[in-house]
Amino acid sequence: MEPDEAADVLGDLSPEMAANAIAEMEDAEVVIPLLSYPDETAGGLMTTAVLSLSPHKTAHEAIEILRAETPGSDIPYYLYVVDEEKKLMGVVGLRDLIVAQPEMVVQDFMDPDVRFATTEMDQEDVAHMMVRYDLAALPVVSDDGVLWGVITHDDSMEVLEEEATEDIYRLANVSDADLSIDSSIGLSVKRRLPWLFLSALTALFASWVITRFESVIAQVALLAAFLSVVAGLGGNTATQSLAIIVRAIALGEIEFRHAWKTVLKESAIGLIDGIAVGLVVGVGVYLWTDNYIIGIVLCLALIVNMFVAAIAGTLVPLFLKAIGQDPALASSVVVTAITDSVGFAVFLGMAAYALTVWS
Amino acid sequence: MEPDEAADVLGDLSPEMAANAIAEMEDAEVVIPLLSYPDETAGGLMTTAVLSLSPHKTAHEAIEILRAETPGSDIPYYLYVVDEEKKLMGVVGLRDLIVAQPEMVVQDFMDPDVRFATTEMDQEDVAHMMVRYDLAALPVVSDDGVLWGVITHDDSMEVLEEEATEDIYRLANVSDADLSIDSSIGLSVKRRLPWLFLSALTALFASWVITRFESVIAQVALLAAFLSVVAGLGGNTATQSLAIIVRAIALGEIEFRHAWKTVLKESAIGLIDGIAVGLVVGVGVYLWTDNYIIGIVLCLALIVNMFVAAIAGTLVPLFLKAIGQDPALASSVVVTAITDSVGFAVFLGMAAYALTVWS
Repeated sequence: MEPDEAADVLGDLSPEMAANAIAEMEDAEVVIPLLSYPDETAGGLMTTAVLSLSPHKTAHEAIEILRAETPGSDIPYYLYVVDEEKKLMGVVGLRDLIVAQPEMVVQDFMDPDVRFATTEMDQEDVAHMMVRYDLAALPVVSDDGVLWGVITHDDSMEVLEEEATEDIYRLANVSDADLSIDSSIGLSVKRRLPWLFLSALTALFASWVITRFESVIAQVALLAAFLSVVAGLGGNTATQSLAIIVRAIALGEIEFRHAWKTVLKESAIGLIDGIAVGLVVGVGVYLWTDNYIIGIVLCLALIVNMFVAAIAGTLVPLFLKAIGQDPALASSVVVTAITDSVGFAVFLGMAAYALTVWS
Repeated sequence: MEPDEAADVLGDLSPEMAANAIAEMEDAEVVIPLLSYPDETAGGLMTTAVLSLSPHKTAHEAIEILRAETPGSDIPYYLYVVDEEKKLMGVVGLRDLIVAQPEMVVQDFMDPDVRFATTEMDQEDVAHMMVRYDLAALPVVSDDGVLWGVITHDDSMEVLEEEATEDIYRLANVSDADLSIDSSIGLSVKRRLPWLFLSALTALFASWVITRFESVIAQVALLAAFLSVVAGLGGNTATQSLAIIVRAIALGEIEFRHAWKTVLKESAIGLIDGIAVGLVVGVGVYLWTDNYIIGIVLCLALIVNMFVAAIAGTLVPLFLKAIGQDPALASSVVVTAITDSVGFAVFLGMAAYALTVWS
C-alpha cells in the first residue's frame, strides 16, 4: 500500500485500531503527517515522497541524488528546489537536468516561477489547476512556503472522475459517490431511500396544490390527464438548465459577478422553448380533445411553467454554490418541487377561471 | 496552434477552405497525417511530435538527441525505442536515461514491455487505460506496430472531462457536449428544444393512458391529486438506477456477462424502496384524505411502479450499450415514458377495480 492510501485507510479507522495499525507499519513516519490533512484537500491528496534539492547542488550532484532513489518508487517528473528551511524556491524538469552541463549549479537553470498548491486547497481546485496548465505534477506547500509533498497527474485524474461521478449522482438524487453497481443492496437502499422520501414529501405538497382545485377536476375530469404534461415539461426544462449550470460550476466556467447574464439567458431559452412547446401541444390537445379551453390553458401553463423552470434550474444551483453548498446536491428535488407546484397551480387556476368566465 | 489542434480545426472546414489553410501553414507535414483519423480515436487525439530512438544508441547519444530538441516543445516524459521500420520496441523513462551509464546501449536498459494504444482505439478507452496504469504518456501505433504519435496525460484528462459532461448532459436531455453557458440562445434552443418535443410526445402518451380512466376520475376527483406522486417517485427511482448504470458503463465497471446480477440487484432495491415509500405514503395519504381506498391503491401503485422503474432504469441503458449506442442518450426519455404510463395505468386501473368492488 502507498503511504497516501494507508493514510486514507487509517483516517477511516477508530483511534485504537489506527494506533495498532501504525505500530505494525514499516513506513509510519511517511503516513503520519498525511493524517492531519482533511481527505478532500491538497494535503490529503498529496504523497510525501517528493524529491527535493538544494539550489547550490550541481546538475551532476542532482543526477546522483536521482540515481540513489529506489527505482521501484513513483517516477518523478520534476525535482523541487528548496532552501535550508525547506521553502520551495523553484523547479527543475528532468529534461532540463539531462541537457544541463554537469557542473552547472541548480539555481542557475531551475525555473523559479513554480506553480504550487497549498495544503488546505480543495482537491478539485488542484485538479482543475493541473488540467489548465497541463501539469504532470504539482508541489504542495504549507502557508509558510515549506514543501510537504507532491500531487501527480494520476491523483488529479482520480479526483476529476470522482467529482464527475458525484455530480451525476447528486443530480439523480443519489447522495454518495462511493456507491457503485458493486455496493450491497443494504447500502444502496440506505443511500437512495432518504432522497425518495424527500421527493415523496415534495410530491405530496404538489398533490395538496391539486386538491385545492378538486371541484374543477370533478367538473372537467379531462384536465387531470394533462397535469403530468405540465409537470413533465417543467421538470425537463429545469433539468436541462440544471445540467448546464452544475457542469459550468464544476468546470469553473461561471463568473459570479456575471451570473445575472446567465439567469437572463436561461430564462430567455425557457420562454422560447415554452412558447414553442406550448403552442404545438396546445393546438395538438385542442384537436385531440376538441376542447379549446383545455388547449388554451395548457398552452399558457406550459409557457409559464417552462419559463419558471429555466429560472429555478439556474438560480437554485447558483444559490447553493453562493452559500457554500454543493450546487448539485438537492437541486433537482427543490427545483421539481417548484415546477410541479407552480405548474399545477397555474394550469388548474387558469382552468378554473376559464370555466367560470366561459361557462 | 499545436499541430493536433490545427488538425481538429481543419477537420471541421470545407475541403476548399482546408486546402487554403494548409497552403498557408508552416508545419503542414505534421498536421496532414492527423487528418486521416476520426476525431474520437487515439489517432485523432495523439500528437505526432514524439521523440523516438534507435535501440543501438548509447545513453549519451540519447541525451544529445534530447538536447537538440527545441526547449519550447512539449516536455517529453518518455523516449520511445523503434527499429529501422519505425516499429515500437520499448520505452526509456527520462529517469532511466539520467541514471544510466553514458556508454550503455539503449536496448540494454529500455523497458520492452511498453503499453500502447492503436490509432483506431476509442479515445475514452485510451483515457481509462492511462488512468488505470497511471501513465503520463501513451504511444500510439498503427496495426503493423509502427509508432505514429503519443497521447499525454493532459489530453486524456480533457477526454475524461468531455465524457463526463456528455453523460451529465445526455441524462438531462441536452444532446451536445459542446453546449455551455457561453453558447448563444439560438444554439441552446436548437439543441434543447427537440428533446422537449420528444418529452412532450411521451407525456401525451401518458395523458392518453389517463383519459382511459376519465370516468373513474370524474367519480373520485381526488385521485387526480396523486397521479403526480406515482409518476414522480417512479421517475426518481429510475433516475437513480440510470445514474448508477450509466456511470458504471462510463468507468468500465460493468461486465456484460454479469449484467443479469445488476438487473436483479437493482430490481431488489426498487422493490425494497417501493415497499418503504409505498407504506409510508399510503398510510399518510389515508390519514390525510380519510379515504382508505386511495391509501391502499396508492401504496400498491408505488410498489409496482418503483419496482418497474428500477428495472427500466437498468435495462434501457444496458440495452442501448449492447446495440452500440450511447447508454445515456435518450435513456431518461424512454424510461420516463415507461414509468409514467405504467404508473398511471396501475394506479387508476386498481382504483377503478377497487371502486367497483367496494362501492
